[in-house]
Amino acid sequence: MTREVKVAAAQVGAIHRDTPKTAVMSRLISLLHEAADSKVQLVVFPECTLTTFFPRHLLQAEELEAFFEHGEITDSPDVKPLFEVSKKLGIDIVLGYAERTPEGVGYNISIYFSAFESRILQKYRKVHLPGTKEPFKEPNATNQLEKRYFTPGDLGFPAFRAPGLVPDTVKKGTVQAGEITAGKGDPIFGMLICNDRRWSEAWRMYALKGAELIMFGFNTGGHMAHLWGGRKAMTPEQAKTEALFHSRLVQQSNSYMNACWSISSARCGKDDGKYDLIAGSAICDPEGHIVAEAQTEGDELISAVIDLEDCRQGKEKTFDFARHRRIEAYGLINQQAGVSEPELLEK
Amino acid sequence: MTREVKVAAAQVGAIHRDTPKTAVMSRLISLLHEAADSKVQLVVFPECTLTTFFPRHLLQAEELEAFFEHGEITDSPDVKPLFEVSKKLGIDIVLGYAERTPEGVGYNISIYFSAFESRILQKYRKVHLPGTKEPFKEPNATNQLEKRYFTPGDLGFPAFRAPGLVPDTVKKGTVQAGEITAGKGDPIFGMLICNDRRWSEAWRMYALKGAELIMFGFNTGGHMAHLWGGRKAMTPEQAKTEALFHSRLVQQSNSYMNACWSISSARCGKDDGKYDLIAGSAICDPEGHIVAEAQTEGDELISAVIDLEDCRQGKEKTFDFARHRRIEAYGLINQQAGVSEPELLEK
Repeated sequence: MTREVKVAAAQVGAIHRDTPKTAVMSRLISLLHEAADSKVQLVVFPECTLTTFFPRHLLQAEELEAFFEHGEITDSPDVKPLFEVSKKLGIDIVLGYAERTPEGVGYNISIYFSAFESRILQKYRKVHLPGTKEPFKEPNATNQLEKRYFTPGDLGFPAFRAPGLVPDTVKKGTVQAGEITAGKGDPIFGMLICNDRRWSEAWRMYALKGAELIMFGFNTGGHMAHLWGGRKAMTPEQAKTEALFHSRLVQQSNSYMNACWSISSARCGKDDGKYDLIAGSAICDPEGHIVAEAQTEGDELISAVIDLEDCRQGKEKTFDFARHRRIEAYGLINQQAGVSEPELLEK
Repeated sequence: MTREVKVAAAQVGAIHRDTPKTAVMSRLISLLHEAADSKVQLVVFPECTLTTFFPRHLLQAEELEAFFEHGEITDSPDVKPLFEVSKKLGIDIVLGYAERTPEGVGYNISIYFSAFESRILQKYRKVHLPGTKEPFKEPNATNQLEKRYFTPGDLGFPAFRAPGLVPDTVKKGTVQAGEITAGKGDPIFGMLICNDRRWSEAWRMYALKGAELIMFGFNTGGHMAHLWGGRKAMTPEQAKTEALFHSRLVQQSNSYMNACWSISSARCGKDDGKYDLIAGSAICDPEGHIVAEAQTEGDELISAVIDLEDCRQGKEKTFDFARHRRIEAYGLINQQAGVSEPELLEK
């Protein structure tokens, strides 16, 4: 038996500080049409897809708010056309953007819109915000002000089933709640955002809910390692290669260790002609092999037919959690955020 | 400032079912002398170094017990010479073996013997035991009976400081207990064993204690994926390549995500001329790059000068746990061992 879904990452190239959302929207819709031509069923867009990656700038309130979405995204005049096309083409989408709640809280959010149900099925708010609250003091450093503009996500890691993608799903009533349904039910999905992918806890939280596919967008500076002054001086080109190496490494290893497929989708290219973001959008299998990877640093659709049954080898053998995990030994993981070192020995 | 230590993995090739421990011992001592010639300060030997990897066999009590060490390992007539050479050469060693406690419990254990202090500084008992309690029913399958012969480790993940390796350590009294001492104190080490390396929780537990170097031995069958019947049929050669890919992947990614050096040491080659174990002993830096890797499938020493200060880039920036981890979102990780799936949606 197979449970195949055709999936894609829609990588999005440079978006400048003054690029209007409508211009971005027409590019996203164009990528969706390209996906439809290839019979893709699910497209993953990047993190903060609709605008330039504004946390690199220290902004005044008015410009800052223009980068956020206020109110229900499906009602937004700017973004609504994307959902209309999604429904018309029958393609589910994952979309990241900056959310301002009615209470005034800012989140870095990703939503899963189901074409089958014509609604948002699930929301995920980024838990691991990188960067700083205060701008860097170094005059040439590129800021990363996510900790200033966003609040850590309050929705946990909400796994969910996506209907309408796998035709041969189980009939209601033949599977008990809590039963392991690999090979039977609608696929189990999870969303992460960018920096979350470097944190094994985030992947594990979804895997503990049986996730078969984890999807995330990212904005990753290719120049950061250079500017942050690693011990080994790097050229900007070396720093970019290093950033891409780390991005691949954590996607491949966490897919393997959690026996799930993953899709990563990059915002990339040079925003404003100078802020360099790595590309490398990729689809990775549950054994840690990349099966499709972007070849450009611009708008690009990469796709693959993925069989969710390929997760079973890992989930039932090496990573059969119920048989192998030893939770009595993991206490510190959620009891202590930072480091507590063993005592210094007397000399 | 640098805190350099010259370290090595002493990979150990084929050991047959009837190979006496004294024959193994002379090979280990030979590797220690080779290490001394290169001014190595710390040598990591593999998992269950002293005998063939016996959990592949369903054994009667008498043969089984001969594979275990009874009583203090430093008093064992067979193994004592290794510690004598360690002291004489001034080389610390990590050694894995099968331990039978006075109470009759079997553990897969690894010890850290300090030449500087002439004693065992720390013990680690393997937490993540792979395999099964009952032998496989398939007539040609190679068993993995660790769950039958061993009890999961009861010592947690005990990080410790190793004295005598870094000459320029802090003087007693100038550092407060609990203070972050990166760059100041004796190095902070942790041990894992084989399958533990695939479990992100194990690495994280050490990283939460500031580990700068994590060391592990392994016995990894190159043929297992083949015999376990993955969905994609593989030749034995492909399965071995895949096993090595996974071994590298988890070492590199977990070193990066925990900002620590790591040393892996393989028992490898063809035990009894037919049980194929992967090699690939490796030293990996805190950014996830392998800096030394075994080139053979036999006895081989690989070494590198590692600077523990290279951990700081990760520990103080991307993986500054205190600033970035969100423990309120990690609840399930130690509350639930197995998988609990989201409910099936109605169709």
